Amino acid sequence: MKPVKTGLLGLGTVGGGVVTVLTGNAHEIARRAGREVVISHAAAKEYDAGAIQGLDQVDRITDDGFAVVNDPDVEIVIELIGGYSPAKDLVLQAIENKKHVVTANKAMIAVHGNEIFSAAQEQGVTVAFEAAVAGGIPIIKAIREGLVANRIHWAAGIINGTGNFILTEMRDKGRDFADVLQEAQERGYAEADPTFDVEGIDAAHKLTIMGSIAFGIPLQFEKTYTEGITRIEQQDVAYADELGYRIKHLGIARRVDAGIELRVHPTLIPARRLIANVDGVMNAVLVQGDAVGPTLYYGAGAGSLPTASSVVADVIDVVRALTTDPENRVPHLAFQPDSMSDLAVLDMADVSTAYYLRMQAVDRPGVLSAVTTILGNLGISIEAIIQKEPEADASHVPIIMLTQRVLERNMNSAITQIEALDTIDGSLHRIRVEALD
Amino acid sequence: MKPVKTGLLGLGTVGGGVVTVLTGNAHEIARRAGREVVISHAAAKEYDAGAIQGLDQVDRITDDGFAVVNDPDVEIVIELIGGYSPAKDLVLQAIENKKHVVTANKAMIAVHGNEIFSAAQEQGVTVAFEAAVAGGIPIIKAIREGLVANRIHWAAGIINGTGNFILTEMRDKGRDFADVLQEAQERGYAEADPTFDVEGIDAAHKLTIMGSIAFGIPLQFEKTYTEGITRIEQQDVAYADELGYRIKHLGIARRVDAGIELRVHPTLIPARRLIANVDGVMNAVLVQGDAVGPTLYYGAGAGSLPTASSVVADVIDVVRALTTDPENRVPHLAFQPDSMSDLAVLDMADVSTAYYLRMQAVDRPGVLSAVTTILGNLGISIEAIIQKEPEADASHVPIIMLTQRVLERNMNSAITQIEALDTIDGSLHRIRVEALD
Repeated sequence: MKPVKTGLLGLGTVGGGVVTVLTGNAHEIARRAGREVVISHAAAKEYDAGAIQGLDQVDRITDDGFAVVNDPDVEIVIELIGGYSPAKDLVLQAIENKKHVVTANKAMIAVHGNEIFSAAQEQGVTVAFEAAVAGGIPIIKAIREGLVANRIHWAAGIINGTGNFILTEMRDKGRDFADVLQEAQERGYAEADPTFDVEGIDAAHKLTIMGSIAFGIPLQFEKTYTEGITRIEQQDVAYADELGYRIKHLGIARRVDAGIELRVHPTLIPARRLIANVDGVMNAVLVQGDAVGPTLYYGAGAGSLPTASSVVADVIDVVRALTTDPENRVPHLAFQPDSMSDLAVLDMADVSTAYYLRMQAVDRPGVLSAVTTILGNLGISIEAIIQKEPEADASHVPIIMLTQRVLERNMNSAITQIEALDTIDGSLHRIRVEALD
Repeated sequence: MKPVKTGLLGLGTVGGGVVTVLTGNAHEIARRAGREVVISHAAAKEYDAGAIQGLDQVDRITDDGFAVVNDPDVEIVIELIGGYSPAKDLVLQAIENKKHVVTANKAMIAVHGNEIFSAAQEQGVTVAFEAAVAGGIPIIKAIREGLVANRIHWAAGIINGTGNFILTEMRDKGRDFADVLQEAQERGYAEADPTFDVEGIDAAHKLTIMGSIAFGIPLQFEKTYTEGITRIEQQDVAYADELGYRIKHLGIARRVDAGIELRVHPTLIPARRLIANVDGVMNAVLVQGDAVGPTLYYGAGAGSLPTASSVVADVIDVVRALTTDPENRVPHLAFQPDSMSDLAVLDMADVSTAYYLRMQAVDRPGVLSAVTTILGNLGISIEAIIQKEPEADASHVPIIMLTQRVLERNMNSAITQIEALDTIDGSLHRIRVEALD
C-alpha cells in the first residue's frame, strides 16, 4: 500500500520528537501498521534543524501552517504548535478540508474541544488527542476503549510532572518550594513562567479532558476547580509524612449522586497507595471502574519522545480507522455525541472531602476545645490531632488535625469561625485528604 | 442500529461476570459503543443460575457449545470455557463459520494461538484476547496500540495474582510458603491443584503472549523458561529485604542482540521500584519502549468482573471493527503476519542476569575465599555479601551474595563447583536479580 502522508505543524520539542520517532522507528511502525507513515509537509516559524534527528526525511518544510492544512496530499494533520492561536484555526481548517487531525494540545482541547469535535463530526473526520493527557501514557485509550465496559466511578491523576517533581524533592530532601522550583526551571522541567504548572492550570486542562471521557460530559474547563501547590510548606510535607500520608498534586474527576466533581488541588493520600509512590517528574492516573476495580497507568507525562510516542500511536489509530464507517469509530469523548450526559459539574462548596488542617494557636488552656467545639457544631468529626510542644521561646504552637469527610461549604464556615478566634494566629492552612479506595 | 448478537461459551466465574457486566452496564455500554450488545445464545454443561445476575436476559441457554458457534444469528463468539478441549475446536469452528471470537483462554492462545490466528486470518475474522493476560488490565491494547510507535526493549510483569499474594504475605507477615498457600486455597485465590499458579505455568502462558505482541515473534510457549516460587524460603524474603530488594514472581520478555528472552522466575527487584510495591493479588506490567521509556499498568489480574471488563472491551472493539477492512485491523500479534520476526528465543543458559546466592558454609577460615575464587575464575563480580554470625550451637553459617550480571551458563558452572566444596553444605539457592531500569 501507498505510504500515508502526514502534515506536521510545529517543530519544537514534541514536533521534533515526532520526526525522530516516525523516521527512526519507520521499519518497526510499518511492520505493525502495515503501511508506511511519512511526513510529507511540515511547517514551523522557527526551528533548530540540527537538533532534530531525521528532519532530512521530511519532504518539504515551510513557515506557513495553512500551506500544510491546505495541501491536498496531506491526509492527516499533526498539530504540535500548542496554545489557542493559530492552532485552533489551523485545526478547524484541516477539518474543513476533511483531513483527520492528531494533536497534543491540551489547552486547545480543554477550552475549544466541543467546537472542534462538533466540526469533525460534521465532516466525518477524527481528532485524536492521546498526547494531550499524561504524555506517553496511553490513558485516553485505556479509559475510552480498555475500560469501555465499566461505569467509571472516579479517576485521580498526578498529571503535571513539574508539580510532582517539586513535591517529591520537598519530601525527599526537606527542601522548600521556592528552592525546588528554581532548580526545576534550571533543569528545564518548568517554564520560565511556571504559572501553568504550579498553579494547576496545566493539570486542569488535562483533568477537564479526563472527566469528559470518563463520564461523557461536555468539556467544561471553566468549571474545573483549580488550586496549585504554591502554598504547600515544608512543614505540611513533614506532618503529612508523620500522619502516614504523602502530599500529591492530584486532578480528581468523580461521579457522585449530585453531579460530577472536577478538581485539581494538593491532596494528602495514604502513603501505602501505589500512586503515593509515583515520584519525580513521572505521571500516573488511577481509575476506578465498577467492573474492573482500580487500575493504574504510569509513565512519563512530558518530554519529546514520550509525547511523540502517543502522537504517533494516534496517527496509526487514525490510519487503521480510515476505512471504518465514522459512526463505528471510537467517539471523541468516549460516548456517542447523542448520548452525552448533562450531569452538572459541582461547585467546590458542594464537594465532600476529608481535610488536613494546620493552625498556629496561642499556647494557653482551652484553645483546642474552642476549635473542636466549632468543628463539632458543624458536624465535623476529627480523625487525628497532632499538637506539638511549643519551642522554648515561642508563644504559639502548631495544631494539626485530620477530619473525616465533610461538605466543603461546612468546612469553609468552620475555617472562618476558627480564624476569628483570638487564640488562633494568622490563617488556617487546609489540604484536602483522599483515601482513594 | 440493530443490537449485536453474541454467543457465550461457558457460564463459570468469568462467563457469569460477562453476563452481569453486559446486562448491568447495558445502557452505559450502548452510550459508548453506539449499539446494544446482547447475549442471544449461551452454552454451558452446568452452571449456577441463581448466582449469575442478569442471566434472565440471555435469550437461550443450551448445553451444546457447537449449537452456539453454528448459530447463524451469532456474530461474535465469546469463549470462556478455558483449557484446550473443547475450547479450541469450538473456536476453530466459529472461525470456520466466519464469526469473530473473543476469548480469555491464555492456555489455548499460548499453545494453539499460531494455528488459531492463521485460521482467523484466512477467514477475515478477528480473535481478541485482552482478558488472557493480566485480567482486567488493558495491557494487550497498551502494547499493541498504545505503544505502537515504540521499539519495545522489554516487558516485565507480575502476572499471577496467587503467586503475588503468597510472596506478599511471606514478606509482610513473616509466614512460610506452605502456610500461605493453604490460606490462598481456602480463600479461593488458588486452585485445589495449585501447580499452574505456583510452578509458573499460568504466568508462562501469559508471558508467551506478551512476548509475541512485544516483539512480533510467533507464540512459543514450549521455549518459555518456567520456574515457580515453591523453593522461596522465608529467609530469602528477609535477606532480600535487608539488601533493599523485594522478591516478586516475574514474567520477563526482553530483546537482546542474540535473540529474545522469555522467562518466568522469582526475581529480586529494588524495593524503590514502583512494581516492587504491587502487593497482594494485584497484577502489574512494566514495559520499556525506546520512545516512551518505562510505562506501568496495574490492576486486578483475575476475578469475575475484572476479567469480564476486558472481555466486554474486546467485544466492543470487534463491533467497532466490523466495517473495517481486515488488513486495517490491529494484527493479532501486533505485527503484520508477513512482518513477523524470526528472532530465536534464547536458552536460559544464554541469558545474562545478576544473582542472589544463599549457601550454608562451615564456620571455618578460608571458606569465603574458596567461594569467591570460584566466582572470580568465571569472571563473576560480587556486588554485596552478607555473612551472618553463627548461632550459638550451630556449626554452619549462611552466606548471602549479590553478583553482577553474568551469563547463566557461567553461573551454572560456578554453582556446581561451589556445591562440590566440602566446606559448603547442601545445595546453593539462587534467585535472579533484575534492576528493571
